[in-house]
Amino acid sequence: MLTVYGDIRSGNCLKVKWLLDRLGRDYRWVETDVMSGVTRSADFLARNPAGQVPAVVFGDGRVLAQSNAIIGYFGEGTDFIPADAYDRARMYEWLFWEQYSHEPYIAVVRFQRLLGGKEADEIEPRLMERGHAALARMEAALNGADWLVGGGPTLADLALVAYTRMAHEGDFDLSAYPAVRAWIARVETAFGIR
Amino acid sequence: MLTVYGDIRSGNCLKVKWLLDRLGRDYRWVETDVMSGVTRSADFLARNPAGQVPAVVFGDGRVLAQSNAIIGYFGEGTDFIPADAYDRARMYEWLFWEQYSHEPYIAVVRFQRLLGGKEADEIEPRLMERGHAALARMEAALNGADWLVGGGPTLADLALVAYTRMAHEGDFDLSAYPAVRAWIARVETAFGIR
Ligand SMILES: N[C@@H](CCC(=O)N[C@@H](CS)C(=O)NCC(=O)O)C(=O)O
Ligand SMILES: N[C@@H](CCC(=O)N[C@@H](CS)C(=O)NCC(=O)O)C(=O)O
Repeated sequence: MLTVYGDIRSGNCLKVKWLLDRLGRDYRWVETDVMSGVTRSADFLARNPAGQVPAVVFGDGRVLAQSNAIIGYFGEGTDFIPADAYDRARMYEWLFWEQYSHEPYIAVVRFQRLLGGKEADEIEPRLMERGHAALARMEAALNGADWLVGGGPTLADLALVAYTRMAHEGDFDLSAYPAVRAWIARVETAFGIR
Repeated sequence: MLTVYGDIRSGNCLKVKWLLDRLGRDYRWVETDVMSGVTRSADFLARNPAGQVPAVVFGDGRVLAQSNAIIGYFGEGTDFIPADAYDRARMYEWLFWEQYSHEPYIAVVRFQRLLGGKEADEIEPRLMERGHAALARMEAALNGADWLVGGGPTLADLALVAYTRMAHEGDFDLSAYPAVRAWIARVETAFGIR
């Protein structure tokens, strides 16, 4: 039996939940409050030395962490990973970009506002700027394209929708990004996200 | 003919160079000074909207960015990507971890010291702390293991060695990490890095 450690408020964790649900996989979800310190406990660290969620534990005790590595694992053999080598590499390009140029701004600001108790005027302007730069890049990519890579939904769409659909919770106004908004609705439908 | 845009001082760019050299691939290297602003020029952005190096351009004009996506593309079909699905996912776990929990501290501090003109006492203590946390995690993983994943060198070793072997340029003293130091030498030999 597969066990998923995750915090249901975290986009990184939801990526995993959405994919497993979409694929009809059986798993046990262990709700893991990232604010409680439990991810830094000796017990948790023994399992996952990165000390973060999401982490999945397979029936035989093997562990896998990093949201995008986890969805890559479960996505193998499905249509959500392109068969063409270049398209597959482009999908990974978006996944690395998400972790490097999107999540550290859009997810982090949302986290500081929602869970960190910060007011809007306490957010570092640089974080807002970089977040908007990420949204602008997505808007350009989706202007005239339904999906980030190729002709159908892939893990790139799944990973990027996670925090993009919550961006307003970090005061990112999406009304300037109409292509992104239309894409969010498409991705939600494709993956059954509510 | 394959073209690689890269700055030879950048570990992210060197990952690509080292792999292509190791695999005996033919390519043209276009040295791209990240301090010159050229990566933000309209010309460069038209090719690579992420506005960063490394970026590779194939003979037919298609572009691929993100260092770890690029090495993933060229590594396909070689022994540097494990055949086993779980080991392959673990390799990607390290690649995502590198971009999320290692590079933003170890590479960034080195950059600020070497190119940004900062003195040691002008570096944010949090960056040093997180960098050491990353090194400590690697030390634990390599204590008793020759490679990060499985029984031989993979892209995880290649990606992580890039900035780890330059960590001292950011004042990270590696003498406290003997397993990491022995591993650096092993990875350099495996990939022909000098
Ligand atoms: N790069 C990781 C990021 C995971 C991450 O940031 N997890 C957060 C929750 S969203 C966490 O566990 N925070 C608690 C901690 O760092 O102690 C991934 O994609 O899985
Ligand atoms: N996540 C990217 C990071 C690339 C990156 O940070 N590139 C830097 C040089 S190491 C760059 O192009 N900086 C210039 C800029 O951002 O304008 C990757 O792994 O390729």
